[in-house]
This record gives sequence, C-alpha cells and structure tokens, in this order.
Amino acid sequence: MRLAVMGAGAVGTSVLELAAEYGHRVVAIADSSSAAVDATGLDPATVTERKRETGSVGTATVETALAAEYDALVEATPTTLGDAEPGYSYVVEAFERDRHVVLANKGPVAERYADVRAAEAASDGDLLFEATVAGAIPTLSTITDLGPGHVTAVRGVLNGTANFILSRMAAEGLDYEHVLAEAQDLGVAETDPSFDVEGTDAALKCVILANVLYDREYTLADAAVDGIADLPGSVLELAAEDGRTVRLVGEVADGEIAVGPRLVPENGTLAVTGTRNIVQLETASAGQLNISGRGAGGPETASAVLADVGRLAKR
Amino acid sequence: MRLAVMGAGAVGTSVLELAAEYGHRVVAIADSSSAAVDATGLDPATVTERKRETGSVGTATVETALAAEYDALVEATPTTLGDAEPGYSYVVEAFERDRHVVLANKGPVAERYADVRAAEAASDGDLLFEATVAGAIPTLSTITDLGPGHVTAVRGVLNGTANFILSRMAAEGLDYEHVLAEAQDLGVAETDPSFDVEGTDAALKCVILANVLYDREYTLADAAVDGIADLPGSVLELAAEDGRTVRLVGEVADGEIAVGPRLVPENGTLAVTGTRNIVQLETASAGQLNISGRGAGGPETASAVLADVGRLAKR
Repeated sequence: MRLAVMGAGAVGTSVLELAAEYGHRVVAIADSSSAAVDATGLDPATVTERKRETGSVGTATVETALAAEYDALVEATPTTLGDAEPGYSYVVEAFERDRHVVLANKGPVAERYADVRAAEAASDGDLLFEATVAGAIPTLSTITDLGPGHVTAVRGVLNGTANFILSRMAAEGLDYEHVLAEAQDLGVAETDPSFDVEGTDAALKCVILANVLYDREYTLADAAVDGIADLPGSVLELAAEDGRTVRLVGEVADGEIAVGPRLVPENGTLAVTGTRNIVQLETASAGQLNISGRGAGGPETASAVLADVGRLAKR
Repeated sequence: MRLAVMGAGAVGTSVLELAAEYGHRVVAIADSSSAAVDATGLDPATVTERKRETGSVGTATVETALAAEYDALVEATPTTLGDAEPGYSYVVEAFERDRHVVLANKGPVAERYADVRAAEAASDGDLLFEATVAGAIPTLSTITDLGPGHVTAVRGVLNGTANFILSRMAAEGLDYEHVLAEAQDLGVAETDPSFDVEGTDAALKCVILANVLYDREYTLADAAVDGIADLPGSVLELAAEDGRTVRLVGEVADGEIAVGPRLVPENGTLAVTGTRNIVQLETASAGQLNISGRGAGGPETASAVLADVGRLAKR
C-alpha cells in the first residue's frame, strides 16, 4: 500500500522507517508546517536527517501531502480534545477522496466518533485505529474477532507514565513529586504531565473502547476520571501491608466508563510494572483474556499502525 | 455461514450451541458413526439430547454430513498422530469441494502441514486453525497480524492439565502422583494423562506455531519434548527457596522446537496458575506481548473456531 503519513513525531517517523519491512511504501509525510512527497517512496534516512537539521521534513506544503496519490492515510498528529483538529479534517479529506484511514491519533475516534463514522460510511475507504488503544497490544482487533457483543467488560492499565510512577512509588517508598521528577528526567513523563497523571489519556482510550463495544458515540465528557496526582504515598504503604498495590485502572462495562486509582493484588494480573500496559477482556463464552505489552513508543505504535495497513491491504 | 461440524465432543457441541449467537448456522454435525443434517439449521437442544439418550447425534451417516451444503467445515474430531485420520481426510474432502476449513483438531496441521496446505492451494476454500493453539487465546491471528517474519520467538504455557498439576504441587507441597489423582478426580486430567503430562499436547501446539512462523513443515518428530511425570516434588521446593517455580514451557525460536519443565520467576509472567495458558510473543519492533486466558474447554475453544468462521465470512 502507498501511505501518506500526517505527523512526523515518534510514531510518524517510525511508520516511515518500518513501512518497507511490511511491504508498504510511504509516498508522503507531513509535519505541522511542511511535507515531503515522492511517488516512488520516501527514503527514511533522508527525511529524518532533513527534519533534524532544518526542523522540517521537506519543502512541500502539508496540502501537497494530503493531495498525494496514496492508498491509506496514516493520521499520527498529536491528540487534541474537542474538535480533534487538525487530525479530524485530514481524516475527512481522505475519506472524501475514497482512501482508507489508519489512526494513531486518538482525537478523532475519542471526541468525534459519530462524525468520523459518518465520513467513513459515505466513502469507499475504511477506518482502522488499533494504535489508538494501548500501542502494540492488539486490543481492538481482538474485540473485533470476538465480536463486540461477546465482550462484557474491558479494563486495563492504559497509561505507561502513570504506571511507571505508581510502580516506583510502591517499590521505593518514594512520594509522588519525587518520582514524577525522576520520570521527567528519564523522559518517561513530559514537562506538563497532566494528560497522563490526571487520567485523561487513559480515559480517551476507554472512550474509544466504549465506542467500539457499544457502537454509539461517547466522548471524554462521558467518562468519570480520577488521576494519581493527589495520591499520598501512605496509601501505597497501606496497600502493601495487605498484599496489594495501586494501579490507574480504566474500565468500560455496562455502558459506563471510569478511570481512577484502584487497589489490585500485588502479584495479580493487573499489577504490570514500569511503563507496560495490560488489557483485560471479559467475554461471554471464552472467559477472561489478558494481553500485556508495550502501550506506547514509536516502533511499538507503528507496528500496530502497520498491522492495520496489512488488514486493509487484504480487503 | 453454513457450518458442517465433524466431531460431537465438547468443542463440536459448543460450536453447535454458540453458532447462532455469532450469526452462523450448523447444517450438519457428525460423531464417529452417525450424523444429523438439516439445511435449515440444526436445533442444538434436540441434537445434544439425542446424543445423551442414544449415544448418536442422529440417524444419518457421517458421509451425509460431509456431503451437505455447507460453507465451512469445522473439524473437531480428536487429535491423532501420524496420518491424522479421520480428520485429515475430512479436510481434504472439504477442500476438494472448494469449501473453507476451520480446525479445532491439531492433527492435520501438526502432522501433515504440507499436505493440508497443498490441498488448500488447489482449492477455492481457505484454512484457519486458531483453535488448535491455546484455546481462547488469539495466538495465530496475532502472529498473522504482526506478520510471521516480525515474530522472533514464541514461548508459552500451553497445557492446562500439566499446569494445574505443577501449580498444585508447588502450592501444597504434594507429590506428582497425589496431585495427578486429584486432577483425575476433578476431571482436569484424563484416565490416561500421558498426552498432557508427557508434553505431547504442548509440543503439537509448538509444532503448529513453527509451521506458521517458518512456513515449512515441522512434525512432532522435530520437537525436543520432555514432560513432567518424573519431576520430583523436591525440585519445586528448591525452586521456591529461590523465588522460582516450575512450568511446562514450550518454545519455538531460531527454527527449533522445545518443550520441557523450566524454572520461571514465581510471580513472573509465565507463572500462570491452575488450568490457565499463556503465550509470550517476542517481536522485532513491538517488544514482548503476553496473552493469557483459557487454553481449553468447549465454549472457549468454540469461540476461537467461531472467530475464524467470522474471518472467513469477511473475505
């Protein structure tokens, strides 16, 4: 497949670097203000070097990338709330041109699910978005295979930054502020960590899961969200005395979405450590399925994007 | 899809019972010496009651079931070694009629992979066999999505009976013979448990994984297999003193297949308890993926069969 990649951050550049290995070709890539386009396929090294040296992936305009002859648009611009722009408009434009769309950006399917599905329905193109939930973990494809109606609940640890902080607090007996500073030094937490530690990122993933499970539109406003920023270290000590620990758990069940710190057994399935994620599916006839792995990272998320591209290529 | 189900054990009857929920219809089911056929769809309650009362699913012949007008053959007869009969012949007959084949029976793809793939290649029908490895755990579909070439190793706990025995031996400090007798009382182990405790069942699953990963034919003869029947309880005690335990682990890596008892961290990912299974995939760009769940059982395995049927229906 010929791919146009919108967004040249960690995920976009990883898609550029890995596409050939999966038998696909990136014919256009755009960052926020420039683009590189080559119908014969872009050379990853050239593009990333130019980006590093000049701050731009190329000399073409973003519009040129959108107008390129591609089969699937890979939307990997940053997640934004509310109108989900500019990703949303890129998605709509691709569908209007009857192209497929693969999302790494959560915004369009978390905040404007009905609009995006309507644009897809009016198009010959199809939408897939495995990479928006838990990075490398095959969550949405597993739900699709089981049939959404056969999944009775989904819960999981869906934010690696929050999980790193909670794991370190519990293991070292350190307080939140101390571990957050450490996570920021390591590059695990951003300078403004609010998206991760306040539960917003995990909640967006749960909203996407709810949209898929119940086939109707939820948005962030429908989720009950509680973060870990106010969690005192003493809670983790109390939990440890009882063989438990705390994880930021997101849950979708009975039409409701909730995210917040929860007590879980210390050596239990949900107590993944470090930046790992886990997704737990409760099913009607197959019992409980647990899938753990890397929930973020450029190559990890790109592998989910390219799995979606592979699925579309088979249709 | 219209399904013909060969085999009326736990898996076959669960497929019969669950098919309608997934939007499919069982038009024929056969046990070893009889069959029931109804083009409008068989009633599960009628068939299972007749089987309970008379020992036969119906009054028709097995050949009538094979000749029925179906879209996909579900092969769920018992796994046999060597010639993999009668399952192998049923598969070939379905392909000769250009029908799809979904396997729950491991024999054809563990012992005669090249023959089965050749029969598929000469047919308009397609082959899927998710249910042959680790029951409800989506193993083969995940490997297919990642691309077999991007999976560098697969290991896992693939036999629930052996895992139940090892879990109980470690937790209760009991010896092998004692726990085996308990497992037989509970129906977790069969009267002749050799297939499970000698590692044959886990090895067949690894052979299937190797066939898919390397796209060439392996058989049971290519696997280095060691079981748990000779494992002294003292090994588990020694392991526990070091924070470890023993699991029957199957591994496929670098073109080799090995199954045997292995020391694993007591609270580590591979140390699933009871009859649960776990599959661990090492990938080139997405890190390690772990999937745990129910590796056996009628409805659990039937859900994997019906997921395959759903995939074929979309083609």
